[in-house]
Amino acid sequence: MEAFSDGIFAIAATLLILNVQVPHAPAGQLTHQLLDLWPSYIAYATSFVTIAVMWLNHHAIFSRVARVDRPLVAFNLFMLGVIAFLPFPTQVLGTHIGTPQDATAAALLYGITGMLIASGFGGVYLWIATHPALLHDAYSDVDFLRVAPRYLVGGVAYTVCIPLAFIYPPAVVAVIAAIVLYYAIDQLPQPSSTSQK
Amino acid sequence: MEAFSDGIFAIAATLLILNVQVPHAPAGQLTHQLLDLWPSYIAYATSFVTIAVMWLNHHAIFSRVARVDRPLVAFNLFMLGVIAFLPFPTQVLGTHIGTPQDATAAALLYGITGMLIASGFGGVYLWIATHPALLHDAYSDVDFLRVAPRYLVGGVAYTVCIPLAFIYPPAVVAVIAAIVLYYAIDQLPQPSSTSQK
Amino acid sequence: MEAFSDGIFAIAATLLILNVQVPHAPAGQLTHQLLDLWPSYIAYATSFVTIAVMWLNHHAIFSRVARVDRPLVAFNLFMLGVIAFLPFPTQVLGTHIGTPQDATAAALLYGITGMLIASGFGGVYLWIATHPALLHDAYSDVDFLRVAPRYLVGGVAYTVCIPLAFIYPPAVVAVIAAIVLYYAIDQLPQPSSTSQK
Amino acid sequence: MEAFSDGIFAIAATLLILNVQVPHAPAGQLTHQLLDLWPSYIAYATSFVTIAVMWLNHHAIFSRVARVDRPLVAFNLFMLGVIAFLPFPTQVLGTHIGTPQDATAAALLYGITGMLIASGFGGVYLWIATHPALLHDAYSDVDFLRVAPRYLVGGVAYTVCIPLAFIYPPAVVAVIAAIVLYYAIDQLPQPSSTSQK
Repeated sequence: MEAFSDGIFAIAATLLILNVQVPHAPAGQLTHQLLDLWPSYIAYATSFVTIAVMWLNHHAIFSRVARVDRPLVAFNLFMLGVIAFLPFPTQVLGTHIGTPQDATAAALLYGITGMLIASGFGGVYLWIATHPALLHDAYSDVDFLRVAPRYLVGGVAYTVCIPLAFIYPPAVVAVIAAIVLYYAIDQLPQPSSTSQK
Repeated sequence: MEAFSDGIFAIAATLLILNVQVPHAPAGQLTHQLLDLWPSYIAYATSFVTIAVMWLNHHAIFSRVARVDRPLVAFNLFMLGVIAFLPFPTQVLGTHIGTPQDATAAALLYGITGMLIASGFGGVYLWIATHPALLHDAYSDVDFLRVAPRYLVGGVAYTVCIPLAFIYPPAVVAVIAAIVLYYAIDQLPQPSSTSQK
Repeated sequence: MEAFSDGIFAIAATLLILNVQVPHAPAGQLTHQLLDLWPSYIAYATSFVTIAVMWLNHHAIFSRVARVDRPLVAFNLFMLGVIAFLPFPTQVLGTHIGTPQDATAAALLYGITGMLIASGFGGVYLWIATHPALLHDAYSDVDFLRVAPRYLVGGVAYTVCIPLAFIYPPAVVAVIAAIVLYYAIDQLPQPSSTSQK
Repeated sequence: MEAFSDGIFAIAATLLILNVQVPHAPAGQLTHQLLDLWPSYIAYATSFVTIAVMWLNHHAIFSRVARVDRPLVAFNLFMLGVIAFLPFPTQVLGTHIGTPQDATAAALLYGITGMLIASGFGGVYLWIATHPALLHDAYSDVDFLRVAPRYLVGGVAYTVCIPLAFIYPPAVVAVIAAIVLYYAIDQLPQPSSTSQK
C-alpha cells in the first residue's frame, strides 16, 4: 500500500503545474498574462502544500501500522482517489476565482474536495485508532485517540468553507491554506527519528 | 519488474484526472459546466478504482513469485501497456457517453480496453499457475489454480459489455464498476499480513 | 541513480497516452475518429515497448554495477533525457505519419530520437565494459564486451531509418518495432534470478 | 522524505516534455515547425539537466542526514514546490523567447524560478550545515560549511540573470545552463561509492 500511496501523492503534487497555462495572446502581452495568473500560483501553492502535508501525516500514521485489513484499504483508496482528483479543482479555482459570477462555484468545488480528503483521512485515522490490533506492538499501548480532536479541526474548518463560498469566495482559499499550515505545524509525532526520513 | 509495475499503476491512476477539463465558456456558466461533467467524474472514479484493485491483485500475485521468465515478462508488459492506455478510453467515455450517436463507440472502446486488461491479467495468472517453479517454495504446494474461476468471472463480464454497448451504453460503465467491486471484495488472500502493507 | 532512472522510465512510458487525443468533432463521428487514430495506437505501442525493453536492459546492466563515476552518470542522464523526450516524437509520428507531405519529417524525428537513445545506451554500456572496476566483484572477470555486437545491431538499424524516412516513412516504425523485438528476445542475461524481479 | 523527493524530481523532469507541442498547421509545414521549436528543445534540455543535477546534489546531501526536523522539512518542501513548478517557466521560455516583445518577461520568469530553487537548496544546505546533530555520526566531524562558497556561486549567477533578462534575454538561458554544468562538475562528493548508485 505504501509504495502506491507514495506514488499517488508525489504524482498528484507534480501534475498540479500542468494546469497553469499562459493563454495564446498577441505579442507583448506576456508580462500582463503572467501577472494575471496570480490566482493560479496561489492555488498551485495551496494544493502542493496540502498534498505534501497530507503525505507527511499519512506516512506518520502508516509507519505505526503493521497490518492492513479491507476497510483500511478501502478508506485509504478513497482518500487517494480524492488526492489524485485535486489537480482538477485546483485548476478550476485558479482560472475562475477571478470571475465574480463563477467564483462561488469554483470555491465550492475546492472546498468540497477538501472536505472529502479530510473525510477519507479521518476514516483512515479512526479505523486505525479503533483497531489497535493493526498497529505495531510498540504502539498498541498508546492512546492513539488522544489526538483525534486535531482531525475535528479540519472537519469543522472545511465545513465552514461551504457558506463562505457564497459570501466571499477568495476566503475559502485562505481558510484551506490556514488548515494546511495548522496540520504542518501540529504534526503527528513521528514514531522514530529515522523513519521520518 | 515490480518497481516498474508499481510506477505504471500509480502514474496511470493519477493521470486520469488530467482528462477532466472544464471547456472555455462565457462567465456564469461554471456551475452548469461542473454539473454536466458528471459522466467524467463517474469514468474517473471507475477507472481509478479499477487500477487500484488491479494493483492490489497484481501485488498479491507477484509477492508469491520468486523468479520471472520471458513469457511472464511479456504477459506483464502487455497488461501494463493496456493499464497505461486506460486514461484514453476513460476520457472518451466521459466526454462522449452523453452524446447518443457516440455513446456506443465510447462504451465499446472502454469495454474492449477492459477485456484486454483482463486478458493480460489472466495471462500473467495462468502462466504462473501452470509454472509452479516460478513460485516461492512456500507456495509451490498450493493449488494455485483453485481460484482460476474468479478470473473467468471477469472475462465473461467484460464480454457481456460488447453487445451491451449497442443496447444501452451507460450499462457498460455499471458492469465494469460491478466487476471491480467483485475483485475488490473477493481479493486474492495476501501471502502474509506484512507483505500487503 | 536507479530510483531516478526507474522513475523516468515508468513516467515516460505512462505519459505516452496523454498525446492520444480525439479531436473535437460533430456528434456521430466518434467511431470514425477512433479508427482514424490507428497510427497513434501503433506509435503508442511501439514507444511503450521500446521504453519497457530499454528499462529491462538498463536494469540488467546496472545490477552488475557496484560503483558509478562522473562519465557514467553523464551517459546515463543523456540517455534518460532522450527517453523522457520520446513522448514528443511519438505524438508527432502518430498525428502526422498519415499526411504524405509531413510523413518524412515525422519519421525522421522518430528515427533520430531512436538513434540518440541507442547512442546513450551504447555509451553507458561501453563505459562500463571498458571500466571493469565499476562492476561487482562477481562480474569483473566476465568478458562483458562479448555482447557488444548486439548493440551494434541497434546502431546500424537506427541509421538505416534515416534514408528510409525519405523513401517510405511508415517503414521506419516497422524497423523500430523490429529493433525492440530483437532486444526483447535477445535480452542480456540477468545476473541472478531474484534481482530481475 | 526521500521517496517523496525522488518522486517529485523524476516526475517534474519527465513532465517537461508535455509542454513541447507542435501547433496545428496546414499539411507540409511539419519540417519548419519542428525546426522552429529549437528554443523549446534548449529549454527542455536545460531544465532536464537542472532537475537531474539538483537531484544528484539533493541525494548527496540527504545521504549524510540521519534525522530531519521541522525547519528542514519546510525548506525541503519549498525547494520541491519550486522544482515541480519548473515545467511552467520552461514552457513559457520555449514558446516566447523568440518573440522580442515577450523575451524579457519569459527570461525573467525562468531566472526568478532558478533563484527560488537556489534559495530553497541553500536553505536546506545551510540548515544542515549549522545543525550537525542532524547528520550521521560519521559526518558530524566534517566541516560541512567548507563547501558553502559553491552555493554562493549559484546565488550570484542567478542574480545576474535579472538585469541580463532586460539586456539580452537569450543569455539568461546560457547562464543557467552554465550554472548547471558547474554544479554537475563540481559535485558534492558522495559519502560512499555505494550510496550514490
